[in-house]
Amino acid sequence: MSVQAVADIGLIGLAVMGQNLVLNMDDHGFVVCAYNRTVSKVDHFLANEAKGTKIVGAHSIAEFCAKLKRPRKVMMLVKAGSAVDDFIEQVLPHLEAGDIIIDGGNSHYPDTIRRTKYLESKGFLFVGCGVSGGEEGARYGPSMMPGGSTAAWPHVKPIFQAIAAKVDGEPCCDWVGETGAGHYVKMVHNGIEYGDMQMICEAYDILKKTLGLTADEIGEIFTEWNQGELDSYLIEITRDILKFKDTDGKPLVEKIKDTAGQKGTGKWTVVSALDTGMPVTLIGEAVFARNLSAIKNERVAASKILGGPSGKFQGDKKQFIHDVSKALYASKIISYAQGFMLMREAAKENDWHLNNAGIALMWRGGCIIRSVFLGDIKTAYTKNPELTNLLFDPFFKAAIEGAADSWRRVVSQAVLLGIPTPCMSSALAFFDGYRNAVLPANLLQAQRDYFGAHTYQTLTSDEWVHTNWTGRGGNVASTTYLA
Amino acid sequence: MSVQAVADIGLIGLAVMGQNLVLNMDDHGFVVCAYNRTVSKVDHFLANEAKGTKIVGAHSIAEFCAKLKRPRKVMMLVKAGSAVDDFIEQVLPHLEAGDIIIDGGNSHYPDTIRRTKYLESKGFLFVGCGVSGGEEGARYGPSMMPGGSTAAWPHVKPIFQAIAAKVDGEPCCDWVGETGAGHYVKMVHNGIEYGDMQMICEAYDILKKTLGLTADEIGEIFTEWNQGELDSYLIEITRDILKFKDTDGKPLVEKIKDTAGQKGTGKWTVVSALDTGMPVTLIGEAVFARNLSAIKNERVAASKILGGPSGKFQGDKKQFIHDVSKALYASKIISYAQGFMLMREAAKENDWHLNNAGIALMWRGGCIIRSVFLGDIKTAYTKNPELTNLLFDPFFKAAIEGAADSWRRVVSQAVLLGIPTPCMSSALAFFDGYRNAVLPANLLQAQRDYFGAHTYQTLTSDEWVHTNWTGRGGNVASTTYLA
Repeated sequence: MSVQAVADIGLIGLAVMGQNLVLNMDDHGFVVCAYNRTVSKVDHFLANEAKGTKIVGAHSIAEFCAKLKRPRKVMMLVKAGSAVDDFIEQVLPHLEAGDIIIDGGNSHYPDTIRRTKYLESKGFLFVGCGVSGGEEGARYGPSMMPGGSTAAWPHVKPIFQAIAAKVDGEPCCDWVGETGAGHYVKMVHNGIEYGDMQMICEAYDILKKTLGLTADEIGEIFTEWNQGELDSYLIEITRDILKFKDTDGKPLVEKIKDTAGQKGTGKWTVVSALDTGMPVTLIGEAVFARNLSAIKNERVAASKILGGPSGKFQGDKKQFIHDVSKALYASKIISYAQGFMLMREAAKENDWHLNNAGIALMWRGGCIIRSVFLGDIKTAYTKNPELTNLLFDPFFKAAIEGAADSWRRVVSQAVLLGIPTPCMSSALAFFDGYRNAVLPANLLQAQRDYFGAHTYQTLTSDEWVHTNWTGRGGNVASTTYLA
Repeated sequence: MSVQAVADIGLIGLAVMGQNLVLNMDDHGFVVCAYNRTVSKVDHFLANEAKGTKIVGAHSIAEFCAKLKRPRKVMMLVKAGSAVDDFIEQVLPHLEAGDIIIDGGNSHYPDTIRRTKYLESKGFLFVGCGVSGGEEGARYGPSMMPGGSTAAWPHVKPIFQAIAAKVDGEPCCDWVGETGAGHYVKMVHNGIEYGDMQMICEAYDILKKTLGLTADEIGEIFTEWNQGELDSYLIEITRDILKFKDTDGKPLVEKIKDTAGQKGTGKWTVVSALDTGMPVTLIGEAVFARNLSAIKNERVAASKILGGPSGKFQGDKKQFIHDVSKALYASKIISYAQGFMLMREAAKENDWHLNNAGIALMWRGGCIIRSVFLGDIKTAYTKNPELTNLLFDPFFKAAIEGAADSWRRVVSQAVLLGIPTPCMSSALAFFDGYRNAVLPANLLQAQRDYFGAHTYQTLTSDEWVHTNWTGRGGNVASTTYLA
């Protein structure tokens, strides 16, 4: 039996993201071959969601690869981790030199670096492509962040840019960079998404607890916010969620258990921040906020033991609601500034050549964090590709300074009223630290030298010196803490 | 030439910590054999610091091991990482079954878990021992946190408990637990130390910038603080540092460059917190605060671009100084509560049997974080070894509730005046989150289900359900995101 190579691309993994990407590719005229480990899912998909399309299926890896035109493009949408390596090994015997394997899952970027090198050493090409946008995005236009073997890009570009989201006619997909750059940028995207979501939750919590507003009323506020500088997908869906009624007519959101899970990409972003030494505090607090939400039983017990303020705001409510929008906006500026600082350092360490304006464009549409705001970031980096920090751009400098008074009022009120705003207050602490030429780390350096002979530099010399602060003990500096 | 086994213990690595531990052991009547990779250091040490003592030296690993009584106790104070593995391999050919290798450096606990298993498989015993107290502690009584091969404990106990710090006659050294437990607890100690130091820096910064106090005046305040509930080594040395004058009569601390380094143990604590899903926010912010301090050039540039409030406090200065002490105290309670939460979860995951009261006692004296405060923690865990959280103990509940108003005033003032207090404000956000039975993570779960079909639980059922929020798209839940 000879199998004809009919498909432009093959896709392995028919969970929701995979199914929708296949349907999206089909919409744009590409012939896709679909495969799934549990092969009954292939038949079910062809008979249902894919009915009436040009999509073809395969019941074995051999058949799947035989149906792909050369150079074969094998895209995997499978669970990150060993499943990716397993499928790579399964398809390799059926591929030829120059064929392309694409991992569209949420792989950890060190794995993508490793896989790129491995597959290139065997004569294949590899692309680690971050895909964002959830099921809707995958179906109608995701944000796609491909990186890896640069030689693969011309072959996947027509398909990826066709199915990606468009903003002002430009596809939210471009080549990110070498080896793991695509998955790295996707990881940072997810970290930023953690931060955006937590900040919105804090705004909702403040409005609910300090002003006693209902879900509907807060939904109205988000409707308004979505028409201005906060215009974004997450604000939009929050508006919809707050207005969504359960079958009994009550807001469904209020019935949902307040314990958030996390899939790991937010955590990876924070670990990478710690590794590169970049203070990505807002995402750190966002991840920890999910952790804290998860220990609900302990919190319920604590709520019966530990008291605090009543939480009711006394003052101009309309002004305060405006202040909350500004606190959200300013915190968001900090989060993105921190995210771009992190990518700047990671690019240095990994010798990636990242295009900040391009990254902002990829995130501008299709993905979960898409927003008008990212258009402003794209503008900033287009005007000045060498911009050291987003906060140095005149637009963002003016924006954050204009929002700062409101931001300070909201955080200080939250603090006095007992409402936790970990991300908003951490962002403000970062801002005040960042714009401060002098931080108290001089005392910290003195402490380290006092108890551990760690030595320090002075403001006028880069030489490392040790002071015998006590007049006792040795004069041995511990920089030689090595036998 | 036959070498006589004269030494009770051998020590490899004559940097400041190693030298001082050797001298400390000698003070307590133990015969120590000293060795160093650069052997000229051995002779120098014997001819100088060790002159007139019973300390012996060795010029080769073979000679070193031959001079040790059986079971041999080989303690290494070398740089964490491959140097430890290298020395283990160097000494192994000269050891016999039952001999004990002790790593007294700042090793990462997974390495200690690995080394314990490796050496036990070869018939040796291994101890990973955290040692804190800096050069002074090592010389006159450190805090020691040994874990690893339980069978080794009776052999090293007499030496370790003799040289360790004493509080009310009790040694600040006890068996911590299996495999990597000793280094884990030492790691958390270091993380807490990062937090304590950063909180003190924030208090100093507030007093300096909002009240315009001099280093001397702040030194006086720390003198007073050191006589109450904040009584601790770090407050004490801060007092000394603030009063320490350079040769020109000016405070030396003000001449030190405000860029703090970090040796990695603080970072490890945060990574472990992220891995175990415990919200150890204060240490996280402390590590990031060091990172932010380190990019001083960027901060100096930012300080010329980004404006903010003047930072001058208008109000009752004396009350405010008192408030700052309470903010420091309350934040410190949170930091230790978070640290013990982390150890609780790590013990579960690693099947360690940690003794919280014992840990508090080990930290009570000798180490950098030693304090009266740790005596209160020891009391709490002695009274109730099953205490879920430090904040549930009546003493600490009363302490934090009593400090809360001051704490809120300080953080809110810092926020309004533009002084960064990342740790104090993060601690307060944690406190308000922890004591809140209802957090806004319900909205977050709704968002995740909206865009990613991640499903959610309700307040009344643990079943995971998905809502089709939009009326569009599929009904496929992404919990099966696996091909």
